Amino acid sequence: MTAPARPTAAPASDRPLGADAPHTPAGPPRTRREHDLLGDRDVPADAYWGIHSLRATENFPVTGVPISVYPQLVDALAAVKQAAARANEELGLLPADKARAIVAACEEIRAGHLHDQFVVDVIQGGAGTSTNMNVNEVVANRALELLGHAKGEYAHLHPNEDVNLSQSTNDAYPTSLRIATITAVHGLLQAMAVLQDAFAAKAVEFRDVLKMGRTQLQDAVPMTLGQEFSTYAVMLEEDRGRLSEAVELMHEINLGATAIGTGLNTPPGYAETARRQLCEITGLPLVTSANLVEATQDCGAFVQLSGVLKRIAVKLSKTCNDLRLLSSGPRAGLNEINLPPVQAGSSIMPGKVNPVIPEVVNQVAFEVIGNDLTVTMAAEAGQLQLNAFEPVILHALAKSITSLRAACLTLAERCVAGPDGGITANTEALRASVENSIGLVTALNPHIGYTTATAIAQEALRTGRGVAELTLEKGLLPAERLAELLTPERLAGASDQRVQWS
Amino acid sequence: MTAPARPTAAPASDRPLGADAPHTPAGPPRTRREHDLLGDRDVPADAYWGIHSLRATENFPVTGVPISVYPQLVDALAAVKQAAARANEELGLLPADKARAIVAACEEIRAGHLHDQFVVDVIQGGAGTSTNMNVNEVVANRALELLGHAKGEYAHLHPNEDVNLSQSTNDAYPTSLRIATITAVHGLLQAMAVLQDAFAAKAVEFRDVLKMGRTQLQDAVPMTLGQEFSTYAVMLEEDRGRLSEAVELMHEINLGATAIGTGLNTPPGYAETARRQLCEITGLPLVTSANLVEATQDCGAFVQLSGVLKRIAVKLSKTCNDLRLLSSGPRAGLNEINLPPVQAGSSIMPGKVNPVIPEVVNQVAFEVIGNDLTVTMAAEAGQLQLNAFEPVILHALAKSITSLRAACLTLAERCVAGPDGGITANTEALRASVENSIGLVTALNPHIGYTTATAIAQEALRTGRGVAELTLEKGLLPAERLAELLTPERLAGASDQRVQWS
Amino acid sequence: MTAPARPTAAPASDRPLGADAPHTPAGPPRTRREHDLLGDRDVPADAYWGIHSLRATENFPVTGVPISVYPQLVDALAAVKQAAARANEELGLLPADKARAIVAACEEIRAGHLHDQFVVDVIQGGAGTSTNMNVNEVVANRALELLGHAKGEYAHLHPNEDVNLSQSTNDAYPTSLRIATITAVHGLLQAMAVLQDAFAAKAVEFRDVLKMGRTQLQDAVPMTLGQEFSTYAVMLEEDRGRLSEAVELMHEINLGATAIGTGLNTPPGYAETARRQLCEITGLPLVTSANLVEATQDCGAFVQLSGVLKRIAVKLSKTCNDLRLLSSGPRAGLNEINLPPVQAGSSIMPGKVNPVIPEVVNQVAFEVIGNDLTVTMAAEAGQLQLNAFEPVILHALAKSITSLRAACLTLAERCVAGPDGGITANTEALRASVENSIGLVTALNPHIGYTTATAIAQEALRTGRGVAELTLEKGLLPAERLAELLTPERLAGASDQRVQWS
Amino acid sequence: MTAPARPTAAPASDRPLGADAPHTPAGPPRTRREHDLLGDRDVPADAYWGIHSLRATENFPVTGVPISVYPQLVDALAAVKQAAARANEELGLLPADKARAIVAACEEIRAGHLHDQFVVDVIQGGAGTSTNMNVNEVVANRALELLGHAKGEYAHLHPNEDVNLSQSTNDAYPTSLRIATITAVHGLLQAMAVLQDAFAAKAVEFRDVLKMGRTQLQDAVPMTLGQEFSTYAVMLEEDRGRLSEAVELMHEINLGATAIGTGLNTPPGYAETARRQLCEITGLPLVTSANLVEATQDCGAFVQLSGVLKRIAVKLSKTCNDLRLLSSGPRAGLNEINLPPVQAGSSIMPGKVNPVIPEVVNQVAFEVIGNDLTVTMAAEAGQLQLNAFEPVILHALAKSITSLRAACLTLAERCVAGPDGGITANTEALRASVENSIGLVTALNPHIGYTTATAIAQEALRTGRGVAELTLEKGLLPAERLAELLTPERLAGASDQRVQWS
Repeated sequence: MTAPARPTAAPASDRPLGADAPHTPAGPPRTRREHDLLGDRDVPADAYWGIHSLRATENFPVTGVPISVYPQLVDALAAVKQAAARANEELGLLPADKARAIVAACEEIRAGHLHDQFVVDVIQGGAGTSTNMNVNEVVANRALELLGHAKGEYAHLHPNEDVNLSQSTNDAYPTSLRIATITAVHGLLQAMAVLQDAFAAKAVEFRDVLKMGRTQLQDAVPMTLGQEFSTYAVMLEEDRGRLSEAVELMHEINLGATAIGTGLNTPPGYAETARRQLCEITGLPLVTSANLVEATQDCGAFVQLSGVLKRIAVKLSKTCNDLRLLSSGPRAGLNEINLPPVQAGSSIMPGKVNPVIPEVVNQVAFEVIGNDLTVTMAAEAGQLQLNAFEPVILHALAKSITSLRAACLTLAERCVAGPDGGITANTEALRASVENSIGLVTALNPHIGYTTATAIAQEALRTGRGVAELTLEKGLLPAERLAELLTPERLAGASDQRVQWS
Repeated sequence: MTAPARPTAAPASDRPLGADAPHTPAGPPRTRREHDLLGDRDVPADAYWGIHSLRATENFPVTGVPISVYPQLVDALAAVKQAAARANEELGLLPADKARAIVAACEEIRAGHLHDQFVVDVIQGGAGTSTNMNVNEVVANRALELLGHAKGEYAHLHPNEDVNLSQSTNDAYPTSLRIATITAVHGLLQAMAVLQDAFAAKAVEFRDVLKMGRTQLQDAVPMTLGQEFSTYAVMLEEDRGRLSEAVELMHEINLGATAIGTGLNTPPGYAETARRQLCEITGLPLVTSANLVEATQDCGAFVQLSGVLKRIAVKLSKTCNDLRLLSSGPRAGLNEINLPPVQAGSSIMPGKVNPVIPEVVNQVAFEVIGNDLTVTMAAEAGQLQLNAFEPVILHALAKSITSLRAACLTLAERCVAGPDGGITANTEALRASVENSIGLVTALNPHIGYTTATAIAQEALRTGRGVAELTLEKGLLPAERLAELLTPERLAGASDQRVQWS
Repeated sequence: MTAPARPTAAPASDRPLGADAPHTPAGPPRTRREHDLLGDRDVPADAYWGIHSLRATENFPVTGVPISVYPQLVDALAAVKQAAARANEELGLLPADKARAIVAACEEIRAGHLHDQFVVDVIQGGAGTSTNMNVNEVVANRALELLGHAKGEYAHLHPNEDVNLSQSTNDAYPTSLRIATITAVHGLLQAMAVLQDAFAAKAVEFRDVLKMGRTQLQDAVPMTLGQEFSTYAVMLEEDRGRLSEAVELMHEINLGATAIGTGLNTPPGYAETARRQLCEITGLPLVTSANLVEATQDCGAFVQLSGVLKRIAVKLSKTCNDLRLLSSGPRAGLNEINLPPVQAGSSIMPGKVNPVIPEVVNQVAFEVIGNDLTVTMAAEAGQLQLNAFEPVILHALAKSITSLRAACLTLAERCVAGPDGGITANTEALRASVENSIGLVTALNPHIGYTTATAIAQEALRTGRGVAELTLEKGLLPAERLAELLTPERLAGASDQRVQWS
Repeated sequence: MTAPARPTAAPASDRPLGADAPHTPAGPPRTRREHDLLGDRDVPADAYWGIHSLRATENFPVTGVPISVYPQLVDALAAVKQAAARANEELGLLPADKARAIVAACEEIRAGHLHDQFVVDVIQGGAGTSTNMNVNEVVANRALELLGHAKGEYAHLHPNEDVNLSQSTNDAYPTSLRIATITAVHGLLQAMAVLQDAFAAKAVEFRDVLKMGRTQLQDAVPMTLGQEFSTYAVMLEEDRGRLSEAVELMHEINLGATAIGTGLNTPPGYAETARRQLCEITGLPLVTSANLVEATQDCGAFVQLSGVLKRIAVKLSKTCNDLRLLSSGPRAGLNEINLPPVQAGSSIMPGKVNPVIPEVVNQVAFEVIGNDLTVTMAAEAGQLQLNAFEPVILHALAKSITSLRAACLTLAERCVAGPDGGITANTEALRASVENSIGLVTALNPHIGYTTATAIAQEALRTGRGVAELTLEKGLLPAERLAELLTPERLAGASDQRVQWS
């Protein structure tokens, strides 16, 4: 919510872009003049970005979030520019000194420098052109300095003609998006593994804790709390499998496609050379799409990845719903488990402790599911040879990946596994609930029949009495046989089935 | 929209369930009495379904669509009952005569008989229990007949105690869902292949049709119409790959889990025996989940499949948007291609022909995307050991698969490939648009530089003149070299890149 | 899921459209020949629909659901045709005998006749043209008969030139959609009122049943069960208010706009005359849009209505989640209320009763939320002067309205209010949970301070003792004052606040 | 995408919260010790926030976005605290000096001070408790200073016992949300009015520009460009109406409800007194809900508002789709209008200018539609007496409102109305397209009949000839009459209908 008094829309353009420049009363000129097809503009003298970035910050004052918020994207953009420069040099299009300077500038960026120069808003029109031009300009100006020239002296090394040589936004930008996404997803996979391990450890810890299983929130049949927690671990393991498959699709790039996939303005062999260089720089096993026209317009891999992130969110949310339900109480709830308290729960109710960590994970899940819809809408809106809406796809995916990673680690470290040992079980009460249950009667089905068992269950419910005593009283089974059939441990399944996470 | 005058909600319960019974004034009794835990009810004497199905049709008058609308689901339910009977017999739980009768009844159903007896509404509470009881009752009553008993004489063969032996709804129902889904998806995969082939044939047909490629709806650089159509074929090929992967997950079943995955009331070896029988019956390579507790509550595979269906919908919709755009006109539009007319377009505008086939495909896509959200919501709402909302997941998936299949075949047969040869191209106009374009200037970049090329483009736009003549006039390149650089075929890429579908 | 063996997509076109014709070996010709811009086709001689409907059933084999499934839509289409005929006669465009015949045919349809002649699939390309032509053809052929001509003798009365006179699909179809929607929504409003009354009656019945209120599933402070149920009634009342507002927007029609809103081919005064006639026929206070060009392309009112239906679904789902939670158990759950059993809950667990009615309502809610996304996608996809996707908007809205109506009535009649008195409360256990609660300590805040109260709460939780005894033991308050402060009734609020539904 | 090397999830907790404190080697203590139910923690000595905020920043490291990013929320929180303090003083619960100090602290915050002290993450578990405690702590510590005490000396004035007196998070937080939302929506309404005016001005400017209207992207009948632009203005006007209605619902507050709506721990008359004070402070006509239990758990008003924001997004997106389509070209597109160039369009294609402003608005729309789903999911997930997920609802709504406001202003100022006069029309080409069109034939319907007109249209399409010449040649109408019927201005409708925005 912006302050309503703000006279224009522009968080980004409100921010004076030259504000970082030294405001010395005298000294060197504080701006330099740059030119493009719309005319001249003055750019702060010490800015590495140039006229395109300047116009873009004015044109897209939407979120106020610059692309520098995604360091992995900045690194990936620099890696692509570096790979292109090396390929252009190798194929004889770029002189060695220019190539060296561009490569050096890219390496500086990839080492973490100049990230504050990536100023365009993460949501932008133009299919990523402004992001691509932002990196072209920063690399060009830094390379110019390395070559002994002043920033802006593009006659010596040009953002479009040299840094962007043999490229278009339409291949450089999606290739960078994919590399950045791969890196981010690896971080998420690690966080999911941490959470999986936390659940698996609890599955082992609770392997002998008997409890009533529930279907449709109604008492069903016995199980162990270890079995219950093992499912959360298994779900995460399966989700990691799906996520690993989905991120595989990200390794297919369209570098060399240029504007629409026909490879216009690339020399023979460029796509393969650039791909090889990019693999070396990033260490990733990238492959070039077989059909570059298709690859340049297609967002299917992003839709697939987003769908898997949604799946992860759905299951994390279900898991947190369960944790909140099982820990409800402490007196008027199920009160089966205890989540470690991490903060006072209420500003008015003394002593109240709330399941705040699962609650924050639920909210992340709701955001991820919303982001998936944004990706869906944006992908569907592509037209002809390009999808102009990849910036919002990047933004939505990046938010989902980042938030899910934080959610998994937080849930592991501040709820399941810690602090102070993490989740604990109310073992005695759980066992009592099994022994007191009507659901035990299911085990008698094969011995007294469904119809008779139904009558026993109804009487137990009506009278508040136990299934075993009623069965005995009616002489349906001998006491010993009954005791054997109703052993809770037996009912919860063979021990090797009970916990598979040991 | 039901008629507002209808006094109750109940399309299904409005329909007198015994209406099909013979209304002879005298003769055999027209109903039989059945009993369950709620008491007695009269069921039409000739109905194979019983008291549970009766109550269910009264309880769930939501869509008015009975489960018989999905014959593949009915077949799958019968296959599961058949496999269970065989396994129970093999493990000594079920006498041979009962097993034979159950198997025979199931085979009749799988041969297409008795489908009209599957009367419960496709949307139902109870996690599918009513569907499972519907098949239990139909199989029991038909088996009773085969054994020489009257329908309803459950003392001889019982829906729960015999047909449902060693099973719960919670393993029988999702196992059936998965088998039905596998069969349905195979039909969709075939339809997608038909559509892919149609686009691929057009890609070959249009391989030499030059046209302007567009990015962001603005003229970009030349390509061929064959390249454009090849992308639609490639997209479908990739989507088929993703769909094949997703349907693999459906082969993991939880038969033998019973109520919550602990396998309560199953004899040792049951899960494996039943799985083996089910593989034989269906011919599918099914595997049993490693963790049955997890498998019984998890809807991840459905979420994954629905996400892939959504991906397919997104791309089909994009493709149809393109077809509608390229065929816009005939005079005030792009008018690049002609869709075959299949009906008069307007009730008021004579001679108007509209892109009705792509339009109907767009609408199917919007439904599939909506269905995916329904699946997402339902999956997230699972609690503890069960997801009670699998019926709506089934319904949403089934609608998506069925509609997408119809959409692919319709698009192939009534638009892309036919009738009368299908889509045609306005070849001359397309070639002229390339020769007349400003986008040709991009090819001069490496030779005259981005900055000079920009000036040429601006002058061409302002004056309406051609890029080539301006370049010549300014002496920037010799005429021969220029002609060589601007050969449209050359610009559209090497011929092996131009069409990959030959 | 269609049978995979089916060779084509086409449920509708598979169905031989002439199948209903009498198959007498000799006698009158069994078909008649009709003509349109694509050529000749034979139509069954006894069909009231004609060549356009025939082609449409072949072109759109998507859902297999004909528009006759929405009788309110058929009635509304006939009402529009009737109003147009009257207006055309009044303005001198249509001879009296033709007008009389058209009006008579429309009245027959609105009386329930000929509905089986509305055969085009509810999902169709062409922006509703096929629906409009279906009604034009049926009305024309019936009117021809009334005039003593044979079906198909369009020289005497033509579907386009007479029935569709002064109209386009683009005004006749959306006007019909709106009228049909208004009627359907009225049915939903009534059903919501029935459910609201059911909850309100329970709020009164439970007005003195004390219980613990919960926030974030944790015990909070006391309240009454009557207060809890009153919220469900209030939510419905508010939703009815929103729905009434949204349906108001439906009363704005664009009849008279013809193709794009410019009113081409309408005589002066037509829009107003037709509107007046339509108000008379339907009894609805319809108004003509001020800007017909805008009205013809805009789907905002449908988006708004769908958004309100989604809101209703969200709250119904939350309400059903609560009912399922409060009735969880019977022994290992909250067990605060009892839902009336309506069917056996399990095929394996004897005596189990599940909350199947709330569960089916949850699933309806998930469908409605999915339908809202379909409406959103379709509305966003409109282009220039028309939204071609109104058929899927109609279908999605109609399903949502119909299902929500059934869900409200079912929830009222089969759960909240009945059978056998409906929901009951476990009053004693609920009161005990209050007296035993730690949440009572909140009431001491103003007297002993938040910090001291926190310490009391922690000790109570740790020791299992009561808040009152600990407060007394520490001498923090005199016994009398304490008893007064902790009176549960006092804590639950003044009686006039406790239940507002009496 | 966070850097994968980052070892923990925690952007917020990584950030040392005391980093802003003066790091002088000697001097006053740099921390103070605070206590809560979990024990002691050291807080930076100069922080106004306290132990609860500290724990919350550690617990919720999700987005890295602190609540201070929403200044309107901070102001609203302070307004609620101020109103409560005044009410508590008026009702005799709070001494005058404490009340004065609290009020003064709140006024400082509302004047823009101390906003950097609002450090908790915008996505948080605990139903907003951490936000409420953040403001309680900041106000308490500032008030303590004003009273001459040191920060942290809560014995003199306590965050819970004094600042939060008579309140719970569950009434103070949603009341603040609503006030903040009202303010933000007013800003959006103003921005929409700016955009509406821009479109309306163009509607007048283009009132005499004739063009072909299109349905389903196919040439239909003539209209004016002014009519086309008037629809965009009308849509915005209608959306403003819906938004104004939806924000009305935000004026209903639950202050005085405390924990669950029973008003526990509020003195008689508190709700009304606090409401009156809050109206005075904010200048808003707030009303107290009739049923506070319902109001405390209900998120219906947020769902409604979000639904209307989605509607606005849907229509803005459709409008931008149209603008991009109409400006497609410049040579191989529709080329009807020109959007003002605001930046170079391509890094590779010289002279290319893209519709970047509409494109960014499309992306905002996709985000808003995604945010609506997040709100939907969060609202549905509420349980019993509270919805714990209001923080993510706030975040989603705030993002939607902020982005839509920026989008409207940007579209108005950088595309429709400016720079350099904004959108222009290619008037001559548009008029020629009308005169050359086949769609003119529709106007002859009433004179030569639909069937004959269809034949003319088909011949015109086949031969490339004009409708008028064919009609004349066939002697269907006299030349004068024909010329009169085909006057484009006549066809586009009466002038008063043509533009309603003058």
